Amino acid sequence: MLTLYHAPISPNSRRVWITLLEKGLEFELVEIKLDGEQFKPDFLGINPFHHIPVLTDDDFNIVESLAILDYLEAKYPTPTLLPKDAKELAMVRMVQLVTVNELLPSMNPLMLQMLDLPGGDPEKIEQAQQKVATVLRFFENLLDDRPYFGSETLSLAEVVAGTVVPWLPKGGVSLGDYPKLRAWCDRLMARPAWQATEATPEMIEGFKSIIAARMAQSNG
Amino acid sequence: MLTLYHAPISPNSRRVWITLLEKGLEFELVEIKLDGEQFKPDFLGINPFHHIPVLTDDDFNIVESLAILDYLEAKYPTPTLLPKDAKELAMVRMVQLVTVNELLPSMNPLMLQMLDLPGGDPEKIEQAQQKVATVLRFFENLLDDRPYFGSETLSLAEVVAGTVVPWLPKGGVSLGDYPKLRAWCDRLMARPAWQATEATPEMIEGFKSIIAARMAQSNG
Repeated sequence: MLTLYHAPISPNSRRVWITLLEKGLEFELVEIKLDGEQFKPDFLGINPFHHIPVLTDDDFNIVESLAILDYLEAKYPTPTLLPKDAKELAMVRMVQLVTVNELLPSMNPLMLQMLDLPGGDPEKIEQAQQKVATVLRFFENLLDDRPYFGSETLSLAEVVAGTVVPWLPKGGVSLGDYPKLRAWCDRLMARPAWQATEATPEMIEGFKSIIAARMAQSNG
Repeated sequence: MLTLYHAPISPNSRRVWITLLEKGLEFELVEIKLDGEQFKPDFLGINPFHHIPVLTDDDFNIVESLAILDYLEAKYPTPTLLPKDAKELAMVRMVQLVTVNELLPSMNPLMLQMLDLPGGDPEKIEQAQQKVATVLRFFENLLDDRPYFGSETLSLAEVVAGTVVPWLPKGGVSLGDYPKLRAWCDRLMARPAWQATEATPEMIEGFKSIIAARMAQSNG
């Protein structure tokens, strides 16, 4: 039995949720509330690093979202979500890792605008937009003339970058200069797995309360 | 022709260097001095995110060390450095990603001691040691009774964690409570690829100057 411990608003756990759906697997969802539930002994027992997502497959616990994706691909190879060719595989891996190591960290200053919350340092926002633009240029070049990164079919690149890039316009970053990337976003948003896992207004409100509480704490 | 752009002291580029050696590949090494050379137009042309390592294979540039490792494994599959079994593969991926996302960031406060430099906040050092201990317990459990993570033979787990864990005793973290991990370290240190890429005293001195300059700048 597959169980995904997740928080619905988190792009890190949405990657896994979408992969489970795209592979047509049966699974159970357990929500971990990020207002402290991740530090409770029950959850620390399955992930001592207190992060979501975690996937358990019977008594085997897998932490780290990118490790979970590779586990699912190895155990349930149909439909395949990783190319075999070395160059195409490298493109998928670059998109995954640049999303995690460059794009997501640079987006922090855009978070308030993304959530319609007031505040934010204009200088940091400007720097963040420049960093995000570097990633978007890199992705636009990498897309070449295929519908997906390094592939004619959906891959684990889409699962990772495709749960982040479509949020950028809400943070004030236009995709207008990146026509291939915009078409790629539209292609993903039309898929049932993306639609079924899209954050609802209630989830966004819940997340806003957590962010607002954290801001009050760091200012207090 | 394979060219590795690297900094010899960096565990991120040493991962790739060791993999090239373990696979017996021919390659050229180009050192990028991290005192600013990474921001020059020549290097930004091959990696707009200004990080080492980068591997170029003729006209194909690969950024992100974990992407490079998977490229090398796919293009040069002998000797294999990734298990095929889903559970064993997940163990390798967890070790790679926990090293990058948990172990390395938590080690920053231990860096000064590791380099025999004075200073460091005792409270932060204590917190860092606790976080490192959580990772070491996780790794010790994962090693079970095999010589390598999830495998009877060397894998990309060793290449990533094995260029970090052996440095911990220099940072004041004893491996005394982790007998399997200590034996695993000894096993790696005996390999020619580890010995050939070990930081020399000159490299460490060069790195200390960069850290000292950064500290002076942030205090100034």
